[in-house]
Order: sequence, then structure tokens, then C-alpha cells
Amino acid sequence: MISKRVQRIQPSKTVEMTSRVAELQRQGREVLRFNVGEPDFATPEHICLAAEEAMRQGFTKYTPVMGILELREAISRKMEEENHVSYLPDEITIGAGAKQCILAALLAICDPGDEVIIPYPCWVSYPELVKLTDGEPVMVPSKADFTLDVSAVKEVVTKRTKAVMINTPNNPTGAVYDRKSLEELAALAVEHDFYIISDEVYEKFVYGGNPHVSISSLSDGIKERTILINGMSKSYAMTGWRIGYLAASKEVIRAVNVLQGQMLSCVHSLSQKAAVAALTGTQEPLQSMIREFEKRRDYMRRRLSRMPGISCRESMGAFYLLPDISGCYGKSYRGITIEDDMRFTEYLLEEAMVAAVPGSAFFAPGHLRFSYSNSMEQIEEGMDRMEQALNKLF
Amino acid sequence: MISKRVQRIQPSKTVEMTSRVAELQRQGREVLRFNVGEPDFATPEHICLAAEEAMRQGFTKYTPVMGILELREAISRKMEEENHVSYLPDEITIGAGAKQCILAALLAICDPGDEVIIPYPCWVSYPELVKLTDGEPVMVPSKADFTLDVSAVKEVVTKRTKAVMINTPNNPTGAVYDRKSLEELAALAVEHDFYIISDEVYEKFVYGGNPHVSISSLSDGIKERTILINGMSKSYAMTGWRIGYLAASKEVIRAVNVLQGQMLSCVHSLSQKAAVAALTGTQEPLQSMIREFEKRRDYMRRRLSRMPGISCRESMGAFYLLPDISGCYGKSYRGITIEDDMRFTEYLLEEAMVAAVPGSAFFAPGHLRFSYSNSMEQIEEGMDRMEQALNKLF
Repeated sequence: MISKRVQRIQPSKTVEMTSRVAELQRQGREVLRFNVGEPDFATPEHICLAAEEAMRQGFTKYTPVMGILELREAISRKMEEENHVSYLPDEITIGAGAKQCILAALLAICDPGDEVIIPYPCWVSYPELVKLTDGEPVMVPSKADFTLDVSAVKEVVTKRTKAVMINTPNNPTGAVYDRKSLEELAALAVEHDFYIISDEVYEKFVYGGNPHVSISSLSDGIKERTILINGMSKSYAMTGWRIGYLAASKEVIRAVNVLQGQMLSCVHSLSQKAAVAALTGTQEPLQSMIREFEKRRDYMRRRLSRMPGISCRESMGAFYLLPDISGCYGKSYRGITIEDDMRFTEYLLEEAMVAAVPGSAFFAPGHLRFSYSNSMEQIEEGMDRMEQALNKLF
Repeated sequence: MISKRVQRIQPSKTVEMTSRVAELQRQGREVLRFNVGEPDFATPEHICLAAEEAMRQGFTKYTPVMGILELREAISRKMEEENHVSYLPDEITIGAGAKQCILAALLAICDPGDEVIIPYPCWVSYPELVKLTDGEPVMVPSKADFTLDVSAVKEVVTKRTKAVMINTPNNPTGAVYDRKSLEELAALAVEHDFYIISDEVYEKFVYGGNPHVSISSLSDGIKERTILINGMSKSYAMTGWRIGYLAASKEVIRAVNVLQGQMLSCVHSLSQKAAVAALTGTQEPLQSMIREFEKRRDYMRRRLSRMPGISCRESMGAFYLLPDISGCYGKSYRGITIEDDMRFTEYLLEEAMVAAVPGSAFFAPGHLRFSYSNSMEQIEEGMDRMEQALNKLF
């Protein structure tokens, strides 16, 4: 009696791994978690205080569907200053996390059979969300260094292309798309009149002085066709608060608001006040989180690169590394032979109690995704354990 | 470039009215709001304290997709004790409000063309949510006293019937379905093997000593086919916290969890802790809220019944009255003629600054929905103003 829709959709692999690890931890096993895509930092104090203050004032009722004006104004100012693109507060809608905003955006634009081009490696949920909204995901490879390959995108554009979904800085690769490739993609979108869904939740996490470029800032023509997705979860260590937002043309926002009104009524009232504090208050906690992430990234990459059978490309952003582990294929220990990244993930979990996500979940077979949103001690311990497990294979 | 889906879906009429009233209030006009479906009470203190405590402990990260075990256990115990039906914690999933749970349930069971029978008058979102999930709403009338007409339902059952969606106590009518009619509906569902989506968010608001009956408690056969929807918003004055839940067979829950994992990741972490406190803490605030609602209901109904052209049926539950205003049709004042409930709503808003929702939003043309979730002073003032406006018509 279950719908065919559900049968088409894969359960989230990252969510499955999280459950698996939680189960092992319940059994008392000391698993080190490098599988989870959330900052290990606490939500900054001043953000929590804003929520508390709002609660004391009884701000616990329905809000407008699109979110409180105060928050949409703060986002509008933030985008003007940081992303160099102007959206009016009425061109912004708040959702229950960036993922929920992507769902609303796809529902607003996709008819059955519409194609959404997704460069891969990509986040697990993109193709599933497209299928959920009756669209057809069209997967195209990124370049070997994981940056955007616009000519590959160009090759698969058809009359049914409704959108290209990009994510920079990228989960799981850490790639940061440069201005030039985004300009080429923008030109393609304007020429063929399709949308760009631009997921920018990792925008703050760019290392080595490279800038984050919002594609909608490049021209009026591309702004009109961009659905910019962002949220509070990653930048402000607010994953549990479930606050995302999208900015788009009035036409798209109008459609999204109709959908959100029927699907959601509104977003958590206190979270909206907390988000205002996050955007308008001190950015020092964010800055120190970024500095810490950069240290961890450098350390983890150095350690991984030295391990036998592992090759780890530099990551420019987000908080993930995606080492190539195919150098371990064919190696065995205690009757387990490494045949693919799934098997390797299992081996690491069983032999080293180290949790990562198999790359194939992100259309990157032969790789593993490591999140460095974990303390330096845990990273050191995890790399030690992993090294020992690898030494057994070689 | 907007999807056909959006063009099929009506914006929420209650949401539209809320925006309209907010706009008038911004202009400094003193509108009395009887249009909003949320308790006017503050979220009880002990519930807020539980959220605060969780925040202090850093409980601000992702939770499992289906919700924290502690909350699902509390719901399981609550249903056992109050609804007389046993669901394991793993047969329960938390969503971002009851509406979001209904969406997930419909996505889990509806294929294109599947029919979902909805007795009307009904909540504005039901038919739109069915359309959103590619199903076809099949509207059937309730009895003249707004109770469930099982024979009317029976007449429209086809091979494509996937579910019947019921809501008791009912928004907007206040009807409470009795055990006998629910038994008849359950028998029909078992015979034709379709689901019952049972929205029970107003379960606590039953007046005059009548019991609320959960259809899934009637037999194992109907429990297997029921998707029970409930939430915290109405019972615990927690509309802004966005916490709903659904209980169903393992098969349905499994499908719902796949969808929720991809659509939502998880529900607000602090809200889940607040919900635990709501269910396990003192029920005194709820009891005093119910007593207050009952007083207001009696008063408002008495006042409405005395007004010219208005006839108001008794309401057994929820916090709405749905007076018949068709006795005012054809009456005029200052060039405005009352031709339908939309026009009447406008007249009330313009002439008396009293906001209600036109019945036609709920498939109840000729009626107006008044929410009595407003202070007794405001209700008195509102009824006075409305009476004066009516006297001008007669």
C-alpha cells in the first residue's frame, strides 16, 4: 500500500550511517565519528540568549509563512554586504532547514519529466529530492579536481532542463567553484533559460583566502534565474534549530510561499529570533570555528596522505575531506578483502571503530568522506587508529 | 517557469486572512481576531523551562530523523493511557507540526490518481495536501449536524480509494465523531482495505463530557490501516514550536522515515525536549485552558444565536463556532449587499473590525468560522461590534 514514490527514493546514506554508529555507541563501543556533517561546536551563547529572551516574551506562536520580517531584513542586509546581491525581504522565504528549502524550490519549479542537472560528487539528498518532486536527476561528472565542469553540464542540457543544482563550497569534496566557471554556467543558464539552484550553506568555510562567489551576484539575468539556498546550521553551529532560507525572483517566492503555507504553516518561532541574533550579533565564534576547522583540515589531510593506499586531494572549503582509497583495493586482513568503498568503510568501522561515509553515497566510488567537525584529540586518535588498521592491510 | 503543481494548489485561506489582518493592524486599525486557529494562551512555564534546560546542555544538534526516543516513548505511553491503543516507539515519527506529518503520510501512500475521501466541512489544507502529493481529493458532505456520514463516504468508495481523511474534534465545525460512526467507518476501511488518516490535534478540546475516540483503538484490523496524526500545538499552546507526530504500521512508518530523512533531516531539537515536558509534566494548564474555552464557547454561541440573520449550531469540540449567516443574504448597508460568506466576512472586517474566516474556505459556504481562542473581553467586544454591524443590515 506504499506509494511508488517511496520505492524510487533511497534512504539517506549519511542518516543510515549515523543510526549505525549510534547503535554501536549504545552497545558501549567507542566509535570516533567522522561521518556527521555538523559542527562539533555548541551554538554560540548570544544566539541561545536571544531564543531565551523571545521565549520569555511569549514569542511562541505562529509566525508569517515566509518568516518574520526582522529575519528577512537581516538576511537581505547580509546578502547585500557579503554576497554582493540585492534581494528585498519579500524575495526571501524562511524554511525548516536548507534541505526543506530545496524541497520547496523543486516543488515550485519541477513538473514530471523535468530534468535537473546535478554535478557529482554531490550531497546524497539532491537526486532523491529531485525524484521526490517528480523531476529527473541528470548526473554529470565534475572535473578530476572536483571543480565545476561547465562543458560537461553543457553536453547534457536539453529542452527539458529545468535547473542545474550546484553546491559551493561543496559537500563532500570541499571544492570551491571559481568566478570564471560560475560565469560560464550563468551564461549557459541565461542562454537556455533554466534555473540555478545554488546551495551555499558552507559559504563561510573557505580556506586559503579564496572568495566564495554567489552566482546570483554575477548579473541581473542570472539573479532572475537563481534560487539561492542558505541556512544557519553550518555557519552558526545551529543544526538542531532547523533554519534555512531561500532567495529568488518574486515569481518563485510566490509559488514557494503557497507551498510552504500548505506544507509547513511556518518555521519554529524561537529559531527565527535566534537566527536574527546569529546574523546581526558578533561573528567572533564563527571566525574562531573557521580557524579551528582550517587547522584540523591541514592536520587530517597530512595524516591521510601519509597512509598506505590513500591519496588525499586538498580541500578548499566546507569541513570534509574525500580521500581516494582505491589504492587499498584487493588488500585483505582476517578474511576481509577491500573490494570497494563500502567494504572499506565497514573495515574501518569494525577494525578501528572509525566512522566515515562511503564515497559512493555521494557518487564518488573509491573514496570516503571524512568530516573534520570533531575535536583535534579525536582526529589524532582516529588517524592513529586508521593508520594501524591500514598497516594490517599492507 | 513555475510548476503545474503550484497552479493546482490554493493558497491557504486562513493564512491569507492572517496576513490581511496583520496588514490592517500595521495601519493602526484595531482588528479583533477570531480568525486564527491557535490558543491565545502562552506556552506553559514548565515546558519553556525544559527547552531552556536542554539549550543550556547544548542539545542543539541533529536528532534522529524519527525523533528522540524519549519523546517517542512519552507519546507511546500517552496513547496507551489516553487513546487506548498501543504503538511501539518505533511506530511513531515526529514531524514539524501535524500538517507536515499529514504531508509525509500522503507522500508515503498516494500514487498519482489515488483518491482520498474527505468529509466536509474540513480544514482548508486537506484537499490541497492531497493535490500536492498527486492524489485526488474526493469531497463528501457531512450530515446536517456536521457529524460523520458514513453512508455518504461509502457511496464514493472506488477501487482507487487510498484513504479517508477524518478530523475529530473537527475544524471548522467543532463536531465530535461518536464511537458508532467510527466503528462503521472502520468496518468500511477494513472491507475495502484503505487507510484512515485520523487528525486528532483537537482531541483535548471536547466539551460536555463526551469522549474523544481514536479510530485506531477500535480493532487490530483498523489500527493496521490507521495513520494517526497528532501534535503539541493546540493542546499545549505550542503552535510556534512546530511539533507534530504520526503513529502507524511499521510499513508506513518505514516509508515516512525515508521521506522525512530526505525532506527534513530532523525536527527542532529543543522542541522535542519541550514536547516531552508537555506530555509528562503537569496537565493543569491544559485543564484550565479547556475550562476557559468552554466558558467562551457558551458565551459566544449565546451571543451569535441572538443576532439577526445568524443561526449557530452547538459545537462539541475544538475551539471554533461555525454560524450559518445565510439569513443575511440580500441585506444591504451603504451600498454593500451581502451575497455570500466572502462578502459577509469583508463587511464584518470593514464595518466592525472583526476578523473571521469565510466558511467557503472550509467547503462550508454560507457560514463563518469564529475561533474563540481570544480573551473573554475581546470576545465580548467583538460580539458587541458584530451585533451593531448586523443591526445596520436589518
